[in-house]
Amino acid sequence: MAKIPYRLYLPEDKIPTQWYNLRADMKDLPDPMLNPQTFKPATEEDLYPVFCKALAHQEMDDTTRYIDIPEGIREMYKLFRPSPLVRAYNLEKELGTPAKIYYKFEGNNTSGSHKLNSAIAQAYYAKEQGLTNLTTETGAGQWGTALAEACSYFHIPLTVYMVKASYLQKPFRQAIIRTFGGKVIASPSDTTEAGRKILAADPENSGSLGTAISEAVETAVTTEGCRYVLGSVLNQVLLHQSVIGLESKAAMEMLDEYPDVVVGCAGGGSNLGGLIAPFMQDKLLGKANPRFVAVEPASCPSLTRGKYAYDFCDTGKITPLAKMYTLGCSFKPSPNHAGGLRYHGMSPILSKLYHDGYMEAMSVEQTKVFEAATMFARVETILPAPESAHAIYGAIEEAKKCKETGEAKTILFGLTGTGYFDMTAYTSFMDGTMSDYIPTDEDLQVGFDKLPKIPGIQE
Amino acid sequence: MAKIPYRLYLPEDKIPTQWYNLRADMKDLPDPMLNPQTFKPATEEDLYPVFCKALAHQEMDDTTRYIDIPEGIREMYKLFRPSPLVRAYNLEKELGTPAKIYYKFEGNNTSGSHKLNSAIAQAYYAKEQGLTNLTTETGAGQWGTALAEACSYFHIPLTVYMVKASYLQKPFRQAIIRTFGGKVIASPSDTTEAGRKILAADPENSGSLGTAISEAVETAVTTEGCRYVLGSVLNQVLLHQSVIGLESKAAMEMLDEYPDVVVGCAGGGSNLGGLIAPFMQDKLLGKANPRFVAVEPASCPSLTRGKYAYDFCDTGKITPLAKMYTLGCSFKPSPNHAGGLRYHGMSPILSKLYHDGYMEAMSVEQTKVFEAATMFARVETILPAPESAHAIYGAIEEAKKCKETGEAKTILFGLTGTGYFDMTAYTSFMDGTMSDYIPTDEDLQVGFDKLPKIPGIQE
Repeated sequence: MAKIPYRLYLPEDKIPTQWYNLRADMKDLPDPMLNPQTFKPATEEDLYPVFCKALAHQEMDDTTRYIDIPEGIREMYKLFRPSPLVRAYNLEKELGTPAKIYYKFEGNNTSGSHKLNSAIAQAYYAKEQGLTNLTTETGAGQWGTALAEACSYFHIPLTVYMVKASYLQKPFRQAIIRTFGGKVIASPSDTTEAGRKILAADPENSGSLGTAISEAVETAVTTEGCRYVLGSVLNQVLLHQSVIGLESKAAMEMLDEYPDVVVGCAGGGSNLGGLIAPFMQDKLLGKANPRFVAVEPASCPSLTRGKYAYDFCDTGKITPLAKMYTLGCSFKPSPNHAGGLRYHGMSPILSKLYHDGYMEAMSVEQTKVFEAATMFARVETILPAPESAHAIYGAIEEAKKCKETGEAKTILFGLTGTGYFDMTAYTSFMDGTMSDYIPTDEDLQVGFDKLPKIPGIQE
Repeated sequence: MAKIPYRLYLPEDKIPTQWYNLRADMKDLPDPMLNPQTFKPATEEDLYPVFCKALAHQEMDDTTRYIDIPEGIREMYKLFRPSPLVRAYNLEKELGTPAKIYYKFEGNNTSGSHKLNSAIAQAYYAKEQGLTNLTTETGAGQWGTALAEACSYFHIPLTVYMVKASYLQKPFRQAIIRTFGGKVIASPSDTTEAGRKILAADPENSGSLGTAISEAVETAVTTEGCRYVLGSVLNQVLLHQSVIGLESKAAMEMLDEYPDVVVGCAGGGSNLGGLIAPFMQDKLLGKANPRFVAVEPASCPSLTRGKYAYDFCDTGKITPLAKMYTLGCSFKPSPNHAGGLRYHGMSPILSKLYHDGYMEAMSVEQTKVFEAATMFARVETILPAPESAHAIYGAIEEAKKCKETGEAKTILFGLTGTGYFDMTAYTSFMDGTMSDYIPTDEDLQVGFDKLPKIPGIQE
């Protein structure tokens, strides 16, 4: 009999009641967002047309270390949280590794991923402010589903701009969003200036996250009582997602464990930033020295091959500029890229930490990702989302190193969600029709050449 | 703040280590299964060609009240059990009912349903006996997925005969089964006598559960080291599924609660029989007097409109005969029936209890089921399987009665699984293209006329 349980759910008195704001402990803060008109540092007020006030405040707050999670948010968290910390006994056995592998499983909710943690917060604050509409974009559909659930719970109408390629390939994702009362529009669409412009130039345009963001933001700023919400990249999102790391750390403390290495998949950084937050605090404060590994797709390698530069968060160039690792806001991953993690940039917080040497990054081809996913599913019985499987791959690599060295390291990784809506990709992997794509340096240079020129800051 | 938590996970020391065998407490037992050749009561040995020995024994055992759950099974249960008992605060609020509504949520595993509870047991015993192959059938795909997970865990090759209509409509279900290493064959197929016979008469035959069972059983009895496993109806399945009711009862005891009424969806009876088992024990022993309500589809109304008679468990008439409520083994629900719960018969245990007045039953049209499902999803944030939504409908009806009478009854229902693979049906509901079908008495008479004639027993 195993002494440590497979799954640990925190008891009620250990469930976090505050989020942790990593920036409060960063001696060197990320460079400020810039107003896209003036190129001056954006103020909280600059953000009011786009975000509701409480969220604009959280976006700019780099001093408050702990922020109370409002009662209304904690009530909805209780519908699916705490999420379990799982000891991957079967995976350890399969690998024959002396390492102890833990994962924080965020997939046990209908949205199927960790995205719900921030969706609830953003819908709640919008409702508090008396807003009557929200807009957002979604790519693979996890974020759109999560936000539709949250908006349905708080009774706020939601419009989701869904990347057209996904809209067509994933009709079931649309259907779930609609079941929760959300309105879904394929992007690019004729409902916005940004969309019409793109369609005029290319009527067959299949969309991108950057374009969908442009459309959602435009609709938000031109509609009375409406704001925009985003599921990743932003400081506020990492703040909300810190609940993942806080719960993980509390659970590991109950087991008398502490990770030697924390592994997460990296797209815009929402899960990774949330998972590592309290452990990174220990590192920043010199209390512990864990390693952090970001795992990203080889076909969308913002950390490992991007530039650390100011860039727009959207393709239409209407959002503020952020200093981040980016492939250029016009970058689109190859159509053969199956999973999520397809955003051109990376959370400014994570970009800064990576730039300053607090975090490592690696990239992996998708066939290797699905190999890890399938192996994991068979031994741990959870069908992972392709996104999450990047972290599985990274954790397996760490566990294999332990096998070589004989070290019994403690590995923690984030299992962000489930793959029920990704069976087309699983099928192409099983049928041997999945291929890998790694952009050439020349491919990437196209995006870098279009990075914005900012007088005195970025020439 | 709510005093009772939304979700209660049993602590480790309260997790059941034994299954409960309801038949040990039934004064009037179900009539015995009959050997299909001799029409004599089937013996344990008669079942050996079809089921592995331990399961054949469980099938016939009507005296052992509690049966130890082997360590190997409990180890795999730990990967997803205990499942939570949830207080449906939001549903109560939405309905404005004084009733307290609880549900046992069995969907938090990759198979997406309670089916995994019995799949693990059946794969385990097959492995113990040294079997080298298993066969089964699947309709909607929940059972096939569950068994593929279990077989992958215990390293036993699996062949799944999947009803052809589902095979074509649900390619993602196939893909999951394949991801877990299962082989999927569309039924009727040319791999069996039974399949070839049906295809010769009707090459376009889209299959039925009964036909898929015939094919799976035939393959099992004609292949060395191979046995057949079934996900519902059988006594052994209800035994394994008693873990649902045992956990529910233990959790309710922790909350100082006891259900006035227990509601479950009813197809073959696997969930309903497991959920009610320990509460039915109390009723049989005179310790308590809860009501039990089975909710079945109006398009496949075995309990509410079927005959209590001996019938074959499969369309090909090669299985033993069981005394049960049945629509006739040739019955196929209308093609417009979207969800599962499409088996022609009902668990002999539940049939007997219903016949003897220990249980009630109701039927419901599918548009009403999806209405309840959508409402539930929006307030409780879980997207239910259409099967499970029958129980939701039944629970809501009970809660509405409480609203009328002002009684604060305690309602427990089984939320058996999630609907991620049923989005086609949800979409047709939202688009208004879903219709209801209630068979006429004449429709049903066709099946009744074909019930087997058994000299001296059923003329």
